[in-house]
Amino acid sequence: MTSTTSFTAQDTAFVRDFQTMSAFGATANGGVDRQAASHPDGEQRHWLTGLLEARGLTVRFDRVGNQWGLYEAVPGAPYVVVGSHMDSQPTAGRYDGAYGVLAAAHAAFRLVERWNAPGAEAPKFNIAVVNWFNEEGSRFKPSMMGSSVYTGKLPLDTALATTDAAGISVQDALDDIACRGSFDGPEPAYCAEIHIEQGRSMEREGITIGLVSSNWAANKYEFVVHGEQAHTGSTIIADRRDALLGASMLVVAAREIANRFPGVLHTSVGQLNVYPNSPVVVPSRVNLLLDLRSADEAVLAQADALLHERIAEIETLANVSVEQHHSHSWPVTPYQPEGVELAAKVAADLRLSNKKVMTLAGHDSTNMKDIVPTVMLFVPSVDGISHNEHEYTKDEDIVAGLAMLTEVVNRLCNGALEV
Amino acid sequence: MTSTTSFTAQDTAFVRDFQTMSAFGATANGGVDRQAASHPDGEQRHWLTGLLEARGLTVRFDRVGNQWGLYEAVPGAPYVVVGSHMDSQPTAGRYDGAYGVLAAAHAAFRLVERWNAPGAEAPKFNIAVVNWFNEEGSRFKPSMMGSSVYTGKLPLDTALATTDAAGISVQDALDDIACRGSFDGPEPAYCAEIHIEQGRSMEREGITIGLVSSNWAANKYEFVVHGEQAHTGSTIIADRRDALLGASMLVVAAREIANRFPGVLHTSVGQLNVYPNSPVVVPSRVNLLLDLRSADEAVLAQADALLHERIAEIETLANVSVEQHHSHSWPVTPYQPEGVELAAKVAADLRLSNKKVMTLAGHDSTNMKDIVPTVMLFVPSVDGISHNEHEYTKDEDIVAGLAMLTEVVNRLCNGALEV
Repeated sequence: MTSTTSFTAQDTAFVRDFQTMSAFGATANGGVDRQAASHPDGEQRHWLTGLLEARGLTVRFDRVGNQWGLYEAVPGAPYVVVGSHMDSQPTAGRYDGAYGVLAAAHAAFRLVERWNAPGAEAPKFNIAVVNWFNEEGSRFKPSMMGSSVYTGKLPLDTALATTDAAGISVQDALDDIACRGSFDGPEPAYCAEIHIEQGRSMEREGITIGLVSSNWAANKYEFVVHGEQAHTGSTIIADRRDALLGASMLVVAAREIANRFPGVLHTSVGQLNVYPNSPVVVPSRVNLLLDLRSADEAVLAQADALLHERIAEIETLANVSVEQHHSHSWPVTPYQPEGVELAAKVAADLRLSNKKVMTLAGHDSTNMKDIVPTVMLFVPSVDGISHNEHEYTKDEDIVAGLAMLTEVVNRLCNGALEV
Repeated sequence: MTSTTSFTAQDTAFVRDFQTMSAFGATANGGVDRQAASHPDGEQRHWLTGLLEARGLTVRFDRVGNQWGLYEAVPGAPYVVVGSHMDSQPTAGRYDGAYGVLAAAHAAFRLVERWNAPGAEAPKFNIAVVNWFNEEGSRFKPSMMGSSVYTGKLPLDTALATTDAAGISVQDALDDIACRGSFDGPEPAYCAEIHIEQGRSMEREGITIGLVSSNWAANKYEFVVHGEQAHTGSTIIADRRDALLGASMLVVAAREIANRFPGVLHTSVGQLNVYPNSPVVVPSRVNLLLDLRSADEAVLAQADALLHERIAEIETLANVSVEQHHSHSWPVTPYQPEGVELAAKVAADLRLSNKKVMTLAGHDSTNMKDIVPTVMLFVPSVDGISHNEHEYTKDEDIVAGLAMLTEVVNRLCNGALEV
């Protein structure tokens, strides 16, 4: 732990609140397990309600479970939306998403206090703290569900009807934790989000604030490999149509393709399910999720072509058929340059080291930037560790990030990006 | 379907009973789903009780759920144990195991009728029809659980405490279907089992009866591949320790090793589980079951050495560690030659085409042959299909197999193998 001697009382309160929130769904290894609409997620959401209400914000849940903390300083004006998500992967770190929501809340507390000071000028826009529902997508697919519904990319009914592996729907899970409301969400004017980098580029260069200028492009595929059930003991190799062999070749192929584009292509298979998954049965079906990501769309197109060439070979080699069940992709898209420029000015004014970065992971702000000018900020991750219980960001960095976010939101509320 | 015009009334009754039993746990595709101690398994067991009792056999369940149908023709004499298993893989064929139990029951019915005919001579041994518990091992590991307990290879308490994926113990599952008793099982003198071949060698050569002379040797391994959770989007490839990549390389390696010993080595991975199995998390752990089988123990030893060489390479290539959690193996062991010879004589007398075969799959008789002289018989499988809903054996073959089994058991009961 770093020294907190230079922290203000407000900074110390923020660090303390962050410790408190990390107790919801805490795991033995120092991480958290707060999958979307699980009980720990619900408990943490109701704790956040109390925190926001104690500071004069009005809390409402919208129809897909996004949690809003509203402060109307200018009656009728649209809102600067600031936040992230508090759900997590099954065994995850404490910072991913949660840091961004708490920083948004504390930024709002600081601004509300400023606006209420004697002689203060009123802002031009109101502020809405948001805790997006199901950013992670581990329990309910797709990820970024709450912000996708809010930005009109995913129909509400589709989201609510989505079921987890146990057959529980989003609607029932949200009702179970009492987090589904009738609100439609506020009218947005701008958006800001702060998040840990989840990579090591900022740490390596000693940078405190990342100014996110665009996201990597991604192709996500759901493949179903079809084989034929057979006895693992008695069936001769030539007769086998082993779906797991085909799927395994696909996992290996994904890595081989990444190795052809060192540093500029990330490939992964995170989820893979085998049927019937019995010790003595040659698997007849494997479902898997594969993704390709790159900052360079031309590289992504080449990787996609290589993957499909390889799939045709695998179908022959493993005597299986590979079905592409569902595919989803997004291009490299910039965050609004005027937002990046505003953030650069703020960082310079606050004397915080900074550089432009791309985000390799998806964020709710990736959705928001398609409807309003959006500022996305990063703080460093120690060793770049993420989606792991050992995820860590230093207290001095989360405190610096909060100061940065507060001032960005302050200027957005004051109309800095108005033309 | 083949013509049944040459079937006796007894044969027709057997085929009809087989159709009836195939309805328990029937699947839409013509197969069955009767995992050990599931409700369909329980329903079928109680149906078998009725069938056996109606023909004068006494039914008892032993402490591990083996179901015994006893007929004591000679008070105090030991028993010829004849049977197989009625549990199945999750989506399985109708013949595997079930055929052998019903053939045992009908063989007993025919012999009991013969012994009760006026002027008939009493046999030297009694007959016990058995339905072994959990031969398949898909729900509860290990496979061949009931016969392993009966033959003293697996402690009763270990078996009863074994849990399925949902945490339900064998003891509770057996109690749930009312199939756990206090019987210890009869004293065995000999054993006989009939089963489908689950391969295509007999069908290809037009052989009706397989005389099983020995089993293939097998090595079964449980591997745990350890990596490190990371974000699939943001973590650079060089930093990844992807457990699924390592596991996939192991699956591919198993097949490559089989390809080096064409026709004489079977390798498989039937079960593989990924943790945390989330779309956006590099897997930190994969558990998988891998087996190597061969009729040639020298080949098996070479395959084992190649596998472990390959594992060391995979640990480096995928930046993972591979733990061998549990391993189980059995050598090539012969069925008693005098039993094979007896069966050959019976087949010749019945004018049934026959040949010696090895069994590639494990059977309960593999356990039984270690404690008493045991005769194992096969009937052909159409296209060698097994552990698959399309498993099929012609009516004329199941009826011929029943005649064969009846006469083998008759001679065993009459002391044909007594020295």
